[in-house]
Amino acid sequence: MLCVSAVADSRLLAGGSQGAAALRPLVATVLDALADGAYDRCGPLPRGGPAAVAERVGAVVRGADGAGTGTGNGTGEGGGGVLPEEGVGADAALAALVRVLAEGAADPADPLCAAHLHCPPLAVAAAADLAASALNPSMDSWDQAPAASELESLTCAALAGLVYGADTGRAERRADALVTTGGTESNQLGVLLARELHGPGVRLVCGENAHHSVHRAAWLLGLAPPLVVPAPRGVLDPAALDGVLSGALESASSGAPGQRDGGRALVVATAGTTDAGEIDPLPEVADVAARHGVRLHVDAAYGGPLLFSGALRGRLAGLERADSVTLDLHKLGWQPVAAGLFVVPDAAALRPLDHRAEYLNADDDTEAGLPDLLGRSLRTTRRPDVLKVAVTLRALGRRGVAELVERTCAAARDLAGLVAADPGLELRSEPVLSTVLFRPAGRGDAVVAEVRRRLLAEGRAVLGRASLDGRLWLKVTLLNPHVQGSDLAALLKLVNDALADGPAGSASPLPHAEGTVRP
Amino acid sequence: MLCVSAVADSRLLAGGSQGAAALRPLVATVLDALADGAYDRCGPLPRGGPAAVAERVGAVVRGADGAGTGTGNGTGEGGGGVLPEEGVGADAALAALVRVLAEGAADPADPLCAAHLHCPPLAVAAAADLAASALNPSMDSWDQAPAASELESLTCAALAGLVYGADTGRAERRADALVTTGGTESNQLGVLLARELHGPGVRLVCGENAHHSVHRAAWLLGLAPPLVVPAPRGVLDPAALDGVLSGALESASSGAPGQRDGGRALVVATAGTTDAGEIDPLPEVADVAARHGVRLHVDAAYGGPLLFSGALRGRLAGLERADSVTLDLHKLGWQPVAAGLFVVPDAAALRPLDHRAEYLNADDDTEAGLPDLLGRSLRTTRRPDVLKVAVTLRALGRRGVAELVERTCAAARDLAGLVAADPGLELRSEPVLSTVLFRPAGRGDAVVAEVRRRLLAEGRAVLGRASLDGRLWLKVTLLNPHVQGSDLAALLKLVNDALADGPAGSASPLPHAEGTVRP
Repeated sequence: MLCVSAVADSRLLAGGSQGAAALRPLVATVLDALADGAYDRCGPLPRGGPAAVAERVGAVVRGADGAGTGTGNGTGEGGGGVLPEEGVGADAALAALVRVLAEGAADPADPLCAAHLHCPPLAVAAAADLAASALNPSMDSWDQAPAASELESLTCAALAGLVYGADTGRAERRADALVTTGGTESNQLGVLLARELHGPGVRLVCGENAHHSVHRAAWLLGLAPPLVVPAPRGVLDPAALDGVLSGALESASSGAPGQRDGGRALVVATAGTTDAGEIDPLPEVADVAARHGVRLHVDAAYGGPLLFSGALRGRLAGLERADSVTLDLHKLGWQPVAAGLFVVPDAAALRPLDHRAEYLNADDDTEAGLPDLLGRSLRTTRRPDVLKVAVTLRALGRRGVAELVERTCAAARDLAGLVAADPGLELRSEPVLSTVLFRPAGRGDAVVAEVRRRLLAEGRAVLGRASLDGRLWLKVTLLNPHVQGSDLAALLKLVNDALADGPAGSASPLPHAEGTVRP
Repeated sequence: MLCVSAVADSRLLAGGSQGAAALRPLVATVLDALADGAYDRCGPLPRGGPAAVAERVGAVVRGADGAGTGTGNGTGEGGGGVLPEEGVGADAALAALVRVLAEGAADPADPLCAAHLHCPPLAVAAAADLAASALNPSMDSWDQAPAASELESLTCAALAGLVYGADTGRAERRADALVTTGGTESNQLGVLLARELHGPGVRLVCGENAHHSVHRAAWLLGLAPPLVVPAPRGVLDPAALDGVLSGALESASSGAPGQRDGGRALVVATAGTTDAGEIDPLPEVADVAARHGVRLHVDAAYGGPLLFSGALRGRLAGLERADSVTLDLHKLGWQPVAAGLFVVPDAAALRPLDHRAEYLNADDDTEAGLPDLLGRSLRTTRRPDVLKVAVTLRALGRRGVAELVERTCAAARDLAGLVAADPGLELRSEPVLSTVLFRPAGRGDAVVAEVRRRLLAEGRAVLGRASLDGRLWLKVTLLNPHVQGSDLAALLKLVNDALADGPAGSASPLPHAEGTVRP
């Protein structure tokens, strides 16, 4: 069929019939700049700390790197060369800024960059994300995203089925999921649904091991700070939870004597803590919540992808009893940010998010068959983050994703084994997911903090930190499925060398770095 | 210098020294699929409405399109083929899903897709966005985004300077901006800062022309619904605002007789309404707010980019008097979603967003010189949306962006001229930005709604709708800087042809579309 659509000259645009042709040379420039920048960096992160990186980025933005820039800044100082009066052209701008960004990246694809829940994305997912940028569907109405909204619907249903099972036993119930900006927004939605059900007096109850976003959600939504259950062993203690819940519900009902206000609480449990990768005892926690008749939200941002693995999914038993679940495929799912999900056992639970805006979901349009999408997010305009997820799942299949999860968890066990075999290091515990905590035996917290900062400043490794059991630990969060035993040994050698170098506990070299990164 | 970093086999990953090589063939597949999908679609959107699109996407996901898929779905029904047991490989997955997404897109690069504030992104911005996906910096801590966080800081300062001027007159004051997911989140931040300043009793006051996200923010943040000032002429009437504010502040202070509670309100004005692209009289609104001693937030998500244009920026006079401003470069800034900004005249105003999480911004790390980034967003993990913005500004310069803004606004004036010259059509008013509202002369609202839906269902045009002045209008939001006069004439001809076809006011053809989109 001949295409007769009259698309105007759109050589500058990423979409339309000429979009791919416009993108081709620019994408080639980006890939070259990524490769050059990675070569220039030559390690997991740039050397020299924040001052050196700022100097380098500033030089490129000012055009002082020889890449050329416009003359002056129309808005005066404060912008440096970010907003030149005259542009330098697409190719020059991409070459300069992408290269300096890559040179100055902490690259999670490098095995020595292993601090955070900050994954190296799969190439297939990053490539798919380019299509999202080029087509720019916006997920707030069907007429901005016809196919993208359908793909989102199918993908969310499949992932919700992974958590709750496809057959919920009742025809009218259907598990569903919303796409979010990450675990923080998903946790916020879990708290919001509880607030809408119980009112602003709802009490949040979480372990001290819960993610900080639970506390921030309470603040954002105008609720009292969560009641915090001590978790001395790193995970929620069901008996302690029971005690706190009893007290909270007793006091909540004190205003109405004789009438227990049993439902006005939300328990938040964690499947994969940020500090240690530990999983709360979900079946027991669910029992306690059920006994008190309160809602349960489980933050499985980190641990959720165990569900892909037949060998590992048993560790998440009980997850399906939660009223809502946070998943996050930009952690153990190898997606570029963002790839968060908020999952519920019954799509009807999402109704409090329904929202009307005449220009997006007028009643007569909805009645005429145009899908109403506005209740599927708290955002309005929204990028189709689901595309990269859908492409990845189709490319790898369940088994492919499972293999990556299993490999990564196995690498953590290997690292723990190396730590345990090193008399100079103390292992906190065997890893549950892919986080390994250790510290130099017999040394103080200041040494731990200092070693971490020194490795950062010297551009040698990106390690994390965690305060647990009253002490500070070095944290390795493994998310690179291709990490080798030799990488793990190299990482421990870097730590041991830094410890040997001393002077421990001195001021960090970061603010007054030894020089700039290599030009 | 020889790079000696030992990066493991990472051929599947987008980052690392091999990332660009891994991406190259996959990106080529994506570009081919985008081109093929646009050719298949052959118009501004697919034909057949939601049912046909769902059928087509479903067939591809099930592998019934001949592209092949895995065998079955490990999670049972609900997922269709989204999560096959075995993967089909990266290339096949990208080819199939990107092509069906492009075929089923409402493509804003097509001049006949002009319903919403849904822009066709620039190729340079989409290409830059690929680097963000590949490197995957996360903006919540320096050690996940060394160069990206510095680039964000410089770019935000430059854009804040565009609003407030580089020199605020006081050395200790520095305008600043946060990157957001869009106008909705930016408006939410404006409301949140007012709540943190004044407490949960703060009264929101906005025009009936304000964006729905202002109302949603009040709900989300646990505040009373906004007091709505009638805007019969489409924009906030300063006298009416004055009256509502007087009443609101009087009643707010009624609990403490004799003591006026002058500051406990927030006025939200709009520079570029979603329905009509109109700009509230900012100087007069700022005067009223100042007289009452209340805060002013201006939602300039749509109109803000007039600031780039010397010829047009005068229309935003008074914007610099706002306590906070919403900008959104995924509208008149031609960025892929998301590219929102929240701008304040003094970075100190952002302090209520400060937040601590030991693993991300421990005090000793901050004291040692590691930047504390957690207060720069309500999200935690966060994509570097600033990269594409910075690359675009550098590529085009201020003048280049201004030219696109001016061209787009000029096209709207041209369209208004064509409408005014057509005796069968009624123009609502001369466009202020790039939105043109019109309707068939002497016809009812049902005809307007029906024509819009018919053009959608037939895949001919994507037009918007707006209820204003007690009537329903067809809305054209022009955001394509390459639109030609012939495109505008074609668009009006489509409307007139659809009107001539009748039967007007009948049931929409959407739910029972005539068939499927072309294979």
